[in-house]
Amino acid sequence: MSEPRFSNALFADLYELTMAQAYWQHGWQAEATFSMFFREYPPDRGYLVYAGLEDLLNYLDEFRFEERDIEYLRASARFDDAFLDWLTDLRFTGSVRSMTEGEIFFANEPVVEVTGPIIEAQLVETYLMNQINLQTTLATKAARVMHAGRGRQMVEFAARRTQGTDAANKLARVTYLTGFAGTSNVQAAAMYGIPPVGTMAHSFITSFPSEREAFEAYVDSFPDSTTLLVDTYDTIQGTRNAIEVGLALQQRGHRLRSIRLDSGDLLALSLECRRMLDDAGLNYVDILASGGLDEYDVQALVDVGAPIAGFGVGTKLGVSADAPWTDCAYKLVEFDGRPVLKLSTGKETLAGRKQVWRVPDVSQFGLDVIVPADEVPPAADAIPLLHDVVRDGKRVGASPTLAELRQRFAESFARLPEPLKALRSPASYEVGISSTQRELQRQVRDEVVARELG
Amino acid sequence: MSEPRFSNALFADLYELTMAQAYWQHGWQAEATFSMFFREYPPDRGYLVYAGLEDLLNYLDEFRFEERDIEYLRASARFDDAFLDWLTDLRFTGSVRSMTEGEIFFANEPVVEVTGPIIEAQLVETYLMNQINLQTTLATKAARVMHAGRGRQMVEFAARRTQGTDAANKLARVTYLTGFAGTSNVQAAAMYGIPPVGTMAHSFITSFPSEREAFEAYVDSFPDSTTLLVDTYDTIQGTRNAIEVGLALQQRGHRLRSIRLDSGDLLALSLECRRMLDDAGLNYVDILASGGLDEYDVQALVDVGAPIAGFGVGTKLGVSADAPWTDCAYKLVEFDGRPVLKLSTGKETLAGRKQVWRVPDVSQFGLDVIVPADEVPPAADAIPLLHDVVRDGKRVGASPTLAELRQRFAESFARLPEPLKALRSPASYEVGISSTQRELQRQVRDEVVARELG
Repeated sequence: MSEPRFSNALFADLYELTMAQAYWQHGWQAEATFSMFFREYPPDRGYLVYAGLEDLLNYLDEFRFEERDIEYLRASARFDDAFLDWLTDLRFTGSVRSMTEGEIFFANEPVVEVTGPIIEAQLVETYLMNQINLQTTLATKAARVMHAGRGRQMVEFAARRTQGTDAANKLARVTYLTGFAGTSNVQAAAMYGIPPVGTMAHSFITSFPSEREAFEAYVDSFPDSTTLLVDTYDTIQGTRNAIEVGLALQQRGHRLRSIRLDSGDLLALSLECRRMLDDAGLNYVDILASGGLDEYDVQALVDVGAPIAGFGVGTKLGVSADAPWTDCAYKLVEFDGRPVLKLSTGKETLAGRKQVWRVPDVSQFGLDVIVPADEVPPAADAIPLLHDVVRDGKRVGASPTLAELRQRFAESFARLPEPLKALRSPASYEVGISSTQRELQRQVRDEVVARELG
Repeated sequence: MSEPRFSNALFADLYELTMAQAYWQHGWQAEATFSMFFREYPPDRGYLVYAGLEDLLNYLDEFRFEERDIEYLRASARFDDAFLDWLTDLRFTGSVRSMTEGEIFFANEPVVEVTGPIIEAQLVETYLMNQINLQTTLATKAARVMHAGRGRQMVEFAARRTQGTDAANKLARVTYLTGFAGTSNVQAAAMYGIPPVGTMAHSFITSFPSEREAFEAYVDSFPDSTTLLVDTYDTIQGTRNAIEVGLALQQRGHRLRSIRLDSGDLLALSLECRRMLDDAGLNYVDILASGGLDEYDVQALVDVGAPIAGFGVGTKLGVSADAPWTDCAYKLVEFDGRPVLKLSTGKETLAGRKQVWRVPDVSQFGLDVIVPADEVPPAADAIPLLHDVVRDGKRVGASPTLAELRQRFAESFARLPEPLKALRSPASYEVGISSTQRELQRQVRDEVVARELG
């Protein structure tokens, strides 16, 4: 990676900076709280999986405008010199309450709330939204793919077709969080300590005088960890070649690991190839499948019992193809002790700092209630979903490891009621708004309407 | 940005590295050519806009495995020590032929061909595809949005909802290439020399005791460049407030620049707000519109003559919402002087190094012909689309500037026949395959079938 020329503090919409100057010139320094939430479910989603917090925390730790950033802003002739001098010394001194990464949550629930001097809480908006939206979108998609697999091994193959390198690396992280066995992306594997996985490409086969010679060359290099790609010319003939190479390998005391189908009718081919492998005594050789698969394809193959041990899932997972964006928002909900809201058509926000309580039933997922932050729990056994993660600019405790998040997600997802997990038209989970929150909302709305429209 | 722990050479699918070791151990060092192309049009696309080359060239310049990458690979216990030592010294010494960024091209045309020792040409696959796919997808979407605007000013507001920070920055670049006036993303503006643009957020308004006071504070800070967001509480009342603030500003010798509508019925509101502004003598104040818009929304508003001078386009542009991925491929087409192909069901590739010739008509877009690379032009006035950009590891000439690419794209797009630009069900452009290419294809296919399936 070439050295970045500008700091991540500059990854901000211009209006964050112009508003910052206007706040500053107006002496607007009081404490503000911004709340991030997802307004609606993307199509066919009955739950969402929260992710992106760790990158937000790293960003807040490092938040500062470097000299080259300030020089750029000064050269734009848009900003006041005294403001830019002040910006040079700015650090994030606020506090953050957030769900834990991997938390299963629902529409309209605040997932993270940032409290601090208004300029700080405002300036972090663009990066915060970008990362939490990206990682939540991809984690939610990944959970669907995992669920469709019903225990088959899932690996992530999307790096070449994600929307950029940042998305590729974050995808590897959140797919592992939701239970994938590994990623093909070596950079991400190295960054996050995820198992790197891989097979071989058609180019390897076509560079050799014959498929058989290509297979032999590859197993010579990796006698104990080879997956042979069998569809370059003809899947059945390719499987015959793989069997011969696998039997020769066995005689040398090694085991072919698997074959990969990447095109054609995966059900019919997997049945035929399984039979061929078994007939040859290679029942230990697994069949993997790949090639434009999404959770619907995986579910269909699993439902009919296709003898496929693992799936390589790429493009459609990697961009969350059926729901590539969400209607998320980061809105000011309190300023200088005063709850605030906007009334824009179809986009009214919930005023004030909030908490989300999960009232458990046997599954843990009974119902959730959104309440003002300082309110008592709605039930004795209710569990708060927002926790202090940054206080006065300092992290509260150590972050969970990715392995811990993965374990916690697996336990939590196992308890999520099945109707909510449906890939099409899932059931809807009950999210209540407490009577105190409703009353606060009514008061603030009435006050705003009287003031602005009276 | 925190310092990256691993180099971009590690941004590769694991199989690129395992295949590299197998090639190396097998003594497979001959020259290979890989070709990248897009198999099919995404929905409702009749053309594509090529982008991503500049990042590829920077990547090739910097291509190397750093010590920490090698240490990681060694620790994985997957690789041969001698191979890793060899990898430490590897640089990209090959050659690249590519279309120019901003070129309008069509399905199945090679956009870039990489020729070099097979290991080098193979190892760059993941990054090359990731960037060219991303930037081509976004540039194509951006061209559609520009086209829908029919000369209205377009600005890119997507940074918070793109799939990651890399996508946000590359989006800003390619939207500017296709004619956008600017981006809200300050980091991208600084990186690429693009005009940064912005207005104000609802949070600014709601932090003040009233909308009117918020407007006054903002114009105090930016008396000559303010766009007032008028929909926080009620768009008509907000416009009344904006008019009062605008008239007061005028008396002080300044001009309110514009107002922004961000919700509700944009046609009805723009007509009403335009009338209100004009009645108040503020005919110089423009109306901007934003809020979940895509090319279809923009086209509908422009077609009915909504008095909107400019559009802020975000999320749906930023992820290419209706077509977030493409069926692109990077395939081996020649090895050691021998044209090769794969026959996988539905994915047969065109063998050999190729050229694309554009045979012009009055519009420049007559028809394109895909031919073997060394073939003579199909017509005297035909224009080759692939050019040498890297030769033996060194760049050929300086890259065009972004401003030059923007100019060239504008001229080229103006000549693209209108039926191809239709946002729904566009006409299809004729892409021929020369008889020599067909004959080559037949020969290679016959040879492969005889060898592998005979």
